[in-house]
Amino acid sequence: MDKILVVGAGLVGSVISGFMADLGHEVEVCDRHPDPRSARAAGGRSINLTICERGFAALARIGAADAVRAVAVPCRGRIVHGVDGRTSSQPYDNQGSAIWSVSRNELNAVLIDRVLSRGNVVARFDERCLEVDLDAPAATFERADGEVVRRSGNRLLGADGARSTVRLRMQMVPRFDYQQEFLDQGYRELRLPAAAHGAWRIEGHAIHVWPRGRYMLIGFPNRDGSFTLSLHMPFEGEISFAAIETPRDLLALFETSFPDALPLVPNLVEDFFSRAETTMVTVRCAPWIWDDKVALVGDSAHAIVPSYGQGANCGFEDCSVLADCVAESRGDWRRAFERYQRLRKPNADAIADLALEHFHELRDLLGTPEFLLRKEIERWLEDAHPERYRSLYSLISFSQVPYAEALRQDKKQRGLVDRLASIPQVRQRLEGAEVRSLVTAHLEVLSGQELQLAH
Amino acid sequence: MDKILVVGAGLVGSVISGFMADLGHEVEVCDRHPDPRSARAAGGRSINLTICERGFAALARIGAADAVRAVAVPCRGRIVHGVDGRTSSQPYDNQGSAIWSVSRNELNAVLIDRVLSRGNVVARFDERCLEVDLDAPAATFERADGEVVRRSGNRLLGADGARSTVRLRMQMVPRFDYQQEFLDQGYRELRLPAAAHGAWRIEGHAIHVWPRGRYMLIGFPNRDGSFTLSLHMPFEGEISFAAIETPRDLLALFETSFPDALPLVPNLVEDFFSRAETTMVTVRCAPWIWDDKVALVGDSAHAIVPSYGQGANCGFEDCSVLADCVAESRGDWRRAFERYQRLRKPNADAIADLALEHFHELRDLLGTPEFLLRKEIERWLEDAHPERYRSLYSLISFSQVPYAEALRQDKKQRGLVDRLASIPQVRQRLEGAEVRSLVTAHLEVLSGQELQLAH
Repeated sequence: MDKILVVGAGLVGSVISGFMADLGHEVEVCDRHPDPRSARAAGGRSINLTICERGFAALARIGAADAVRAVAVPCRGRIVHGVDGRTSSQPYDNQGSAIWSVSRNELNAVLIDRVLSRGNVVARFDERCLEVDLDAPAATFERADGEVVRRSGNRLLGADGARSTVRLRMQMVPRFDYQQEFLDQGYRELRLPAAAHGAWRIEGHAIHVWPRGRYMLIGFPNRDGSFTLSLHMPFEGEISFAAIETPRDLLALFETSFPDALPLVPNLVEDFFSRAETTMVTVRCAPWIWDDKVALVGDSAHAIVPSYGQGANCGFEDCSVLADCVAESRGDWRRAFERYQRLRKPNADAIADLALEHFHELRDLLGTPEFLLRKEIERWLEDAHPERYRSLYSLISFSQVPYAEALRQDKKQRGLVDRLASIPQVRQRLEGAEVRSLVTAHLEVLSGQELQLAH
Repeated sequence: MDKILVVGAGLVGSVISGFMADLGHEVEVCDRHPDPRSARAAGGRSINLTICERGFAALARIGAADAVRAVAVPCRGRIVHGVDGRTSSQPYDNQGSAIWSVSRNELNAVLIDRVLSRGNVVARFDERCLEVDLDAPAATFERADGEVVRRSGNRLLGADGARSTVRLRMQMVPRFDYQQEFLDQGYRELRLPAAAHGAWRIEGHAIHVWPRGRYMLIGFPNRDGSFTLSLHMPFEGEISFAAIETPRDLLALFETSFPDALPLVPNLVEDFFSRAETTMVTVRCAPWIWDDKVALVGDSAHAIVPSYGQGANCGFEDCSVLADCVAESRGDWRRAFERYQRLRKPNADAIADLALEHFHELRDLLGTPEFLLRKEIERWLEDAHPERYRSLYSLISFSQVPYAEALRQDKKQRGLVDRLASIPQVRQRLEGAEVRSLVTAHLEVLSGQELQLAH
């Protein structure tokens, strides 16, 4: 059995520690933040994220899925808010499938708690990674009291996020390809408090979106009846963070663009001006591994923008795949790491592309009649041909089909939805002979190409 | 006047120090290597590069052009070696324009020597930059004796190359876009010694190329009658550095692919096996500047692959443009840095793309009849219409037209060369009426679009 040093005890660091411990390895996991179960951690910024089927599948393998569901809120669709205050509901599918909204801090606390119930995991908090020695492998950490300690293992896993220190060290290795690319917009988080007795002020089992072209507001429900809102805007330009200099500017924006949200955010001005924007970055690199010593997992290998809600899910799936590769290779870590990279890199590239594409879709199309029509057609297809058609969103969020495969499949399917959307008054004709024969012909070609529709 | 701290005293670091000193600033320039004029430096690896018109134009402004020409060899074209030992000569143009081959060490020694003749430049060698403080701005350096010193200035210029420490620090700044991408092949340098009395064994005023598809040999003349050869190959694969494990493998490659070169490289085996491959990287980043404090120049801002011979030339042009921006903005460094970035970034992006494209052209097309025909047509056009047509190679190597403009122009011109190359027996028809009217019509359209053909 090996001694595994995990750098980072965030979401992915916790989960990979659980997987490695369950394979019988001794795990030491270190993080620069305080223990997420402590009061200090709870005082930090509130960020919400969503867990979907593939994330839960990985969590179930380390016995953490139910504990996570217990602190999360299932959301069965989007509710889109128009400028006139009218809303339209877009269920994700016809089966009531849900993605689960959860606060990052709470999720992290639950995961660490579950993982530390194992006897062979030790966690160290308030230790900032300064340097990494790939060959040893080992890392030096600075503790809160200023003391510098060196920790080593037989293997080192870098689970230290988008600004990974482990990856930064690998960047110095010759022939390491690396890219970090920021969106030209960011977001700030605002709080929509609960009504009396912890009731929700707006529908609680949904993600709320106020799409306004280049800027938008998104709301994620919390268990306590509150929502976390993210205000997305460009950094510079006419309507931008730079342009909102005073409370009056901010209120004018909300009065004009989000009038129905304004009465729901009593601390709008304070929330907005007390925080800086969060940036959104896509990180791609290769290789993810160094010799048979070091591997990157999660955001450190492939940070993606949050628009598809897949960052944590993709990271948890990494852990699940890496654990399988380690188990299968029976002590041959080089083979395990190489196989892990071969299996996961194309999927990480695919979800990075999809997340960027979805970001533009959410921003530019979400409120448009064309988008609503496409979503309706997709749901109709899923309902009429459950064995042969699943929308891209379903494949990503409600299946475990690998991301790259989902992307390939969607490229084949898109033509059918395009074609149907172009038929005049298609809503009235979905059950007619013309549509039926067109759909049947198209789906037969697709199913000849061996679609993977496994849930 | 300001105190300017320059990190890196390589080619670009030396030249920007000269420019800044000539504007009246006090310059301190630090480098981790020994003084290039010392015996220790001369013992290092020999790398050749080429200086062309735009490089000399910048060097002339700091009074270094003649000193550089004195240590360089003018090359007026390429000589291409076939597998059968036959050679074909490809002059760069009809005017005898030359690019100048020079060893990096000698060039660096000349530049430092010229720049240090100024009273207001201090150079410190054997000082490795450890950390950069962007806000101060300042940097800490480790000296050869292990002592760590902090040096500061009013401005800091990062001229510390493709693996820049200054840029690495900027990479930590939010919203810094960064990319490093390696070619999947590299090169090793071999020496072709001089004949008796320092005579050249092959034509000295030319770059020699042995193109063989995925691998090739390139020869650069030195003043002492020797040549520096670069053997380019993929890292892995059938014919690759990984595949050449023994002297026998190496000799077999030369016997098969470079038979005419084999007798010219008596130390082939020793040269090859005593050195590791040099990698080739493209680095892109944005922004190049931090506040009014820090700017990147040369490879630290935009490393490019060496195939177009433009790395140093582009870096020297950066220096020239930055100096103009600083002079024009009269103490407003923010304005100077922003203008410098606005002017240079599109040109750096253009030459990075061109260098990658030229790499594939050199590798895949150089020896083909189609390529030779295009080069002939280009020279004929330049000769027949010197005021209205210049080939891309001429625009890059023998003019000071900005790279991005040269690229735009070439995109318009390519169609004409394509068209001419598709005419059967075009060589015999160049002076005929058909070609004349086609060329006249095309060039008239182009000149209506205001071509910049300034030398």
